[in-house]
Amino acid sequence: MESAHRGKQSIVFMQPPAILSYASIAGKKEAAGPLGKTFDYVSDDTKFGQKTWEKAETQMQKSVMQMALQKADMKESDLDAAFLGDLLNQCVGSSFSMRNNGVPTFGLYGACSTMAESLLLAGMTISGGFCRTALALSSSHFASSERQYRFPLGYGGQRTPTAQWTVTGAGAVILGQNGNGPYLTNATIGTIVDMGIKDAANMGAAMAPAAYETLKAHFDDLSVAPEDYDLIVTGDLGKLGHQIVNDLFSKDGVELGSRYQDCGMLIFDLEKQDVHCGGSGCGCSASVLCGYLLGKMQRHQLKRLLFCGTGALLSPLTTQQGESIPSVCHAVSICTEGG
Amino acid sequence: MESAHRGKQSIVFMQPPAILSYASIAGKKEAAGPLGKTFDYVSDDTKFGQKTWEKAETQMQKSVMQMALQKADMKESDLDAAFLGDLLNQCVGSSFSMRNNGVPTFGLYGACSTMAESLLLAGMTISGGFCRTALALSSSHFASSERQYRFPLGYGGQRTPTAQWTVTGAGAVILGQNGNGPYLTNATIGTIVDMGIKDAANMGAAMAPAAYETLKAHFDDLSVAPEDYDLIVTGDLGKLGHQIVNDLFSKDGVELGSRYQDCGMLIFDLEKQDVHCGGSGCGCSASVLCGYLLGKMQRHQLKRLLFCGTGALLSPLTTQQGESIPSVCHAVSICTEGG
Repeated sequence: MESAHRGKQSIVFMQPPAILSYASIAGKKEAAGPLGKTFDYVSDDTKFGQKTWEKAETQMQKSVMQMALQKADMKESDLDAAFLGDLLNQCVGSSFSMRNNGVPTFGLYGACSTMAESLLLAGMTISGGFCRTALALSSSHFASSERQYRFPLGYGGQRTPTAQWTVTGAGAVILGQNGNGPYLTNATIGTIVDMGIKDAANMGAAMAPAAYETLKAHFDDLSVAPEDYDLIVTGDLGKLGHQIVNDLFSKDGVELGSRYQDCGMLIFDLEKQDVHCGGSGCGCSASVLCGYLLGKMQRHQLKRLLFCGTGALLSPLTTQQGESIPSVCHAVSICTEGG
Repeated sequence: MESAHRGKQSIVFMQPPAILSYASIAGKKEAAGPLGKTFDYVSDDTKFGQKTWEKAETQMQKSVMQMALQKADMKESDLDAAFLGDLLNQCVGSSFSMRNNGVPTFGLYGACSTMAESLLLAGMTISGGFCRTALALSSSHFASSERQYRFPLGYGGQRTPTAQWTVTGAGAVILGQNGNGPYLTNATIGTIVDMGIKDAANMGAAMAPAAYETLKAHFDDLSVAPEDYDLIVTGDLGKLGHQIVNDLFSKDGVELGSRYQDCGMLIFDLEKQDVHCGGSGCGCSASVLCGYLLGKMQRHQLKRLLFCGTGALLSPLTTQQGESIPSVCHAVSICTEGG
């Protein structure tokens, strides 16, 4: 068997999984942002018809899965596996959305890197012949996250300038063995990097080194350069983290330039929407990928995308115990050709 | 490419991953139980030399990984991937144990099914040629779990008769493409099953239907019968959940008999150790697999094992919101021959 492993931490999809369909959902603040028209469904009701914000997150996941299934003319029983996760303690958004639907399910925890992690794992099971179809899905909800990680919303806590705004949204991709693309072509698995940042309100700075390390490994392992991509997106470092990644590469003599963007900066208008450094949450990169980015690929306005999910792997408890913030970044290359 | 998918939710490892090494660690209560002599390392200090129970859990993970690496004569840089998870919010036991060690890492959340989930995923990446080596690891800690899920330990809350005792322990397996075995031969991916049990102190009853569904799918998908295994273990349904699985199969005319056991019943002396229905926690099935069970396989006293990790995917919040308990069970077949 020919090895699909490359270099230190990368893989090549020798049978490139095809994206059969994708779908996204978002809340009203996201709908008011620059990408507002790219989501499949937007709700003005932050509870998405449910009694609690946590149940709303489960509802978003169910809806986005159903939309992706419909677009692919599939039903739940056609899915050989699902890979998904969210930010809630014990990932209950995901467990409850898949409850009793008969889909073989792998629960993941990668914080805001989950969309990339789920794509990477789903891609391996397809390319390796273990599954004929697989779902990759992730979500976050501003209100369920705020009360779990920070303050009760009614408390009205002041946010620091480096803070980001958790996106209310979800995205889903269905992969298959054959299709018209786009395709997953290769990927780099992240290592857990912690450079000692302890400020839980500055997750961009905490995650930026993980993004830098994964991108560097990606370029080295696969002998590619930034110019081999039309767009490299991290999700979601925000404005500060994005600047740090640019700076770290500049020191190496590599200018990423405008081909490098960040999902947390794309989803909101940073000047007008009072989100400080930008969007965050598993649903940020998930809804940007499954709306704006894959939409551009479908219209062939974007051909070679490097999608880099970034996650801060802290908990409120580790912050209370004085710990710094371990972070991870998984990168998946998605191309319109290669299948 | 020949498909490795079978039936509804199963896979065959056509290139069976070999278990290169395994290691286990446990606390003093576990050491006093029937499997006390099967753990590689036991600590009388519930904090494993750390300042907090959560840091102790990270320390257990680091130790068990190092022991498994040593046994395989490997170092961290020889690992192409790690798959791991735990019960702590945001799975911080795992994120912190892999921090800055350079190992490409996938974070999982499968509650007490994590050891089986990690083996299954690691196995697919090995068998699919994506990784040459992979680590599967999971842990739990009685004290970090109790205060997160139930009561502060000092509160001294009375436990109900159906309660289980969270194991302080961890287990790690290193898989490779070639070796003397045992080998992973096939597996069944669990679906999320919820039969409406709402009592968070009766997780055995909540998880038993998931175990039954996965076992039934395993037998159907792969055309095998209980008699094809020397031992079928669930981990960790405890005494009540184990009885329910037996009863459900009895109704189908299938008697599992003594070949069916449960890690939660094996690890403690249920009569003498005041653990009520038995052990639980990710570390229960992980430490039983990576001590007692794989030890028996190494000595060829056990040749065909079906290892079924069971997880209750609730959170304290979902219980507060009146929800029932979704559960999952992943099954992995491990055989001394087949490589």
